[in-house]
Amino acid sequence: MSNYFGLTPQLLSLDWGTSSLRAFLMRESNVIETRQSGHGIQHLPSSGTAGYEQAFAEIAGDWVAQWPQLPIVACGMVGSAQGWKEAPYVRCPADMQLLASKSITVQSGLGPDILIAPGVLFDVPDALPDVMRGEEIQIAGALLTNPQWAIRSCMLLPGTHSKWAQIENGRIVRYSTYLTGELFSVLSKHSILGRLMPAEGDSKSESDPAAFELGLATARRSGPGDLSRQIFGTRTLGLAGRLPLASLAEYLSGLLIGHELVSGMAGAGDLTSVPLVMIGAPSLCQRYVHSLKYMGQSADAVLDNTAPAGLWNLAMASGRIA
Amino acid sequence: MSNYFGLTPQLLSLDWGTSSLRAFLMRESNVIETRQSGHGIQHLPSSGTAGYEQAFAEIAGDWVAQWPQLPIVACGMVGSAQGWKEAPYVRCPADMQLLASKSITVQSGLGPDILIAPGVLFDVPDALPDVMRGEEIQIAGALLTNPQWAIRSCMLLPGTHSKWAQIENGRIVRYSTYLTGELFSVLSKHSILGRLMPAEGDSKSESDPAAFELGLATARRSGPGDLSRQIFGTRTLGLAGRLPLASLAEYLSGLLIGHELVSGMAGAGDLTSVPLVMIGAPSLCQRYVHSLKYMGQSADAVLDNTAPAGLWNLAMASGRIA
Repeated sequence: MSNYFGLTPQLLSLDWGTSSLRAFLMRESNVIETRQSGHGIQHLPSSGTAGYEQAFAEIAGDWVAQWPQLPIVACGMVGSAQGWKEAPYVRCPADMQLLASKSITVQSGLGPDILIAPGVLFDVPDALPDVMRGEEIQIAGALLTNPQWAIRSCMLLPGTHSKWAQIENGRIVRYSTYLTGELFSVLSKHSILGRLMPAEGDSKSESDPAAFELGLATARRSGPGDLSRQIFGTRTLGLAGRLPLASLAEYLSGLLIGHELVSGMAGAGDLTSVPLVMIGAPSLCQRYVHSLKYMGQSADAVLDNTAPAGLWNLAMASGRIA
Repeated sequence: MSNYFGLTPQLLSLDWGTSSLRAFLMRESNVIETRQSGHGIQHLPSSGTAGYEQAFAEIAGDWVAQWPQLPIVACGMVGSAQGWKEAPYVRCPADMQLLASKSITVQSGLGPDILIAPGVLFDVPDALPDVMRGEEIQIAGALLTNPQWAIRSCMLLPGTHSKWAQIENGRIVRYSTYLTGELFSVLSKHSILGRLMPAEGDSKSESDPAAFELGLATARRSGPGDLSRQIFGTRTLGLAGRLPLASLAEYLSGLLIGHELVSGMAGAGDLTSVPLVMIGAPSLCQRYVHSLKYMGQSADAVLDNTAPAGLWNLAMASGRIA
């Protein structure tokens, strides 16, 4: 095995989602090199197994040729029923050992096989079921960053489908998904609410903290069922001249994030004694930090992408690396 | 003036919305004949004033030729800023006299002018503003049906943008709009929630009352902010095998209607002493009656289209008919 900038890599890890594929060359839980391609599972270069093999060969073929013994692990939608091969959901409570033991393998087409992590299903009587696939590895990465959080913590992963996960004794015991990001996108693009919003590009696109906070304030004082009424405010605040049209999207963003926080905080238990850890893109996390503060809550930590660390954790738990 | 099936019409009224145009030949507040065209204000045969004139001539030109003295009144989006001519919103509290006095006129292109009703704006400090245009005339029609409701009532108009209007002393004093119908449509068509739903036409399209009631039950036990989490249940109930895929739309429908009812009933005051009057398409009203019953509430009356009666009311209040 030759060196790579003087370092011998120990793991090749893949974060393979719906719209993108990222590959990490890792050593000692650190990323040596990152590559990214647009070959998410819905955007493969060809259909079926060949598409996955080709996408993998394009992003990491030279790495595999150089270090043919390098273990390879993957997470995300690549393991879904629509993915390369299904890694069926494991059930809560789920820890690293369970995730590792229920991981499945596929032949990469280049010799070595690839270990793919399962998703996590929450399904108990008298509650709505929930699913995650990929976030469990991000959580595993956060737990590697600070093992104290494994004892007890609340992990918040904002995004298209925001997750609020409760961690106890190293296990994901329960979690909830909020459609926040997708609601914003779908309502802005496809509903009457977008009609008054300046088109992207046309917009000055300046942020309007007051409009965003009006959304947060509206969410904070809401009762059960009020959201679909308050959503209509995105239109009426513009029609009544109470907000500039360029600020309507900020109101909607604040309203939807605010609703997520009101419900998520209520479900997270006593956040004065449980650390709240946020994982996600820095700009989005910043928006959530601001919103949490508005609701009287602080985040104990804000982490950028923890998927590589989580994949390292998976590789250890599965015995792929020592 | 000649007779029409032995009856002399006294009013030509138009319910002119976004997607359709309906014309009513009326006498003594009753409809003698109804016509409908697809020439809503977003689907005119040509652009600008000419498009309105042409759409009007096509649907009612022969009526105008036969009875050139017939008064003509209209309501709906035809009076919006995107309509034939804007009839600016009047503010709550709004009664029939205010609506009549703030109606505007356009030349029909065929001789007589057309009186167009304004919409109603609710805009007070410390509350979200709200708008209606067309529903105020439906409410006016209901009040003509039973003047007792003018004293005090709650009018519920389910639909794409459901309205809950509080009536006191003949006035619309306040109201709220819920995006229920549009949320259902947009989420089913454009979000991940629709992915598991059988395509329209493919679906057996059998109703599933249990799935609908699961949505209602979920709404009934919701706390503030819970909707975007519960919405995701439309996907996870399918993935977890708790509902057949063909029933997911029923769950979503029950959830969204349920949320509207929880919030709307809370805002309507004491519905044990205030009559709840529903106005809308019979099949949709039936769904709401069932949902109200599930929530422990009954509707005191269910009315089909009251726009013609409301336009008659407008014509009287404006002095167009005696």
